[in-house]
Amino acid sequence: MSNIAGYDYGTSRAARSPVTLEELRALEASAGFTAADAVALRQAHQALGPQAEAMVDLWRAEIARQPHLVQSFCTPDGVPDDRYRAAVKQRFVQWITDACTKPHDQAWLDYQEEIGLRHTPAKKNRTDATQTPPLVPLRYLLGFIAPVVLSVRPFLDGHGFSAADVEAMSRAWTKAVLLHVTLWSRAYVRDGLW
Amino acid sequence: MSNIAGYDYGTSRAARSPVTLEELRALEASAGFTAADAVALRQAHQALGPQAEAMVDLWRAEIARQPHLVQSFCTPDGVPDDRYRAAVKQRFVQWITDACTKPHDQAWLDYQEEIGLRHTPAKKNRTDATQTPPLVPLRYLLGFIAPVVLSVRPFLDGHGFSAADVEAMSRAWTKAVLLHVTLWSRAYVRDGLW
Repeated sequence: MSNIAGYDYGTSRAARSPVTLEELRALEASAGFTAADAVALRQAHQALGPQAEAMVDLWRAEIARQPHLVQSFCTPDGVPDDRYRAAVKQRFVQWITDACTKPHDQAWLDYQEEIGLRHTPAKKNRTDATQTPPLVPLRYLLGFIAPVVLSVRPFLDGHGFSAADVEAMSRAWTKAVLLHVTLWSRAYVRDGLW
Repeated sequence: MSNIAGYDYGTSRAARSPVTLEELRALEASAGFTAADAVALRQAHQALGPQAEAMVDLWRAEIARQPHLVQSFCTPDGVPDDRYRAAVKQRFVQWITDACTKPHDQAWLDYQEEIGLRHTPAKKNRTDATQTPPLVPLRYLLGFIAPVVLSVRPFLDGHGFSAADVEAMSRAWTKAVLLHVTLWSRAYVRDGLW
């Protein structure tokens, strides 16, 4: 059992995803995600796992510079909710390890559904009993894919991997991030259009 | 005036985007898109412009290998609608040039709204008077970002650019593609959640 509050991966507290494994395989194919990418991600985790908090700190610093992003973490008084930020951060750090190591099975699908819902009025704030805005607008979730994929390479360099391996790991990370956020987007989309 | 059928950029036939320029600047910031990226994209166009059709051919070949992707181009009989495929291809090729060269102004915003709508039941098939499925599911639009961003580098190599310039152009392309698809996603999303 995890010590991370609200980390409901693989538990009955997580949502059930309506996405089938067959639909997931088609989505993986559209992103070009293969078994080789899963291997590259596990290899990448040797470097990224120990640096996961530093990666989140880098992204958080970027979020902090942008009022339209940081407001998702603010109380009704407009000040950052540090308890909420800390709780989300622990799960965000764990997400990096999970993204590199977890098999793309039903438990993984279910937790992506849960993460998506936690960014929308359906479930935002509920896990942590907070009063921040009820939504992270989808456009910021999608836009922020760019810094998350474009910042990974320095965390892979200098760990004894060949240049070709770093390239393969960076590409696998890009595909994996896109798959995750695509699954998170489901909670935002009109019926039948996802 | 353009010779490309249905290419309504900058015309009154394009949709009006409800996204404000202020909201666009915030979205650009979330993707880390800066004036330097716009410069890098114009530079990239020296290489990508003349190869735009080859890039689309590469992506189209990938789409053709995946039944769940190619079905968006098929008639009710389940065979590819070649006239529709050809019409969309011309606009897809033009999109590469536009993505590299057009300023992010109201006309650009409006045409992104139009492109988004043309992937949903609101407007798919209407421009080309076709009877293909009324939807490109959002998940495939998002998943396919991966091949579109990860395939650009070979088209930038070998054109006399420095390695640093190719890197900057590749990063700018990644951010630009994410911005475009993010704007296209608006047409799919529940009211108030985009």
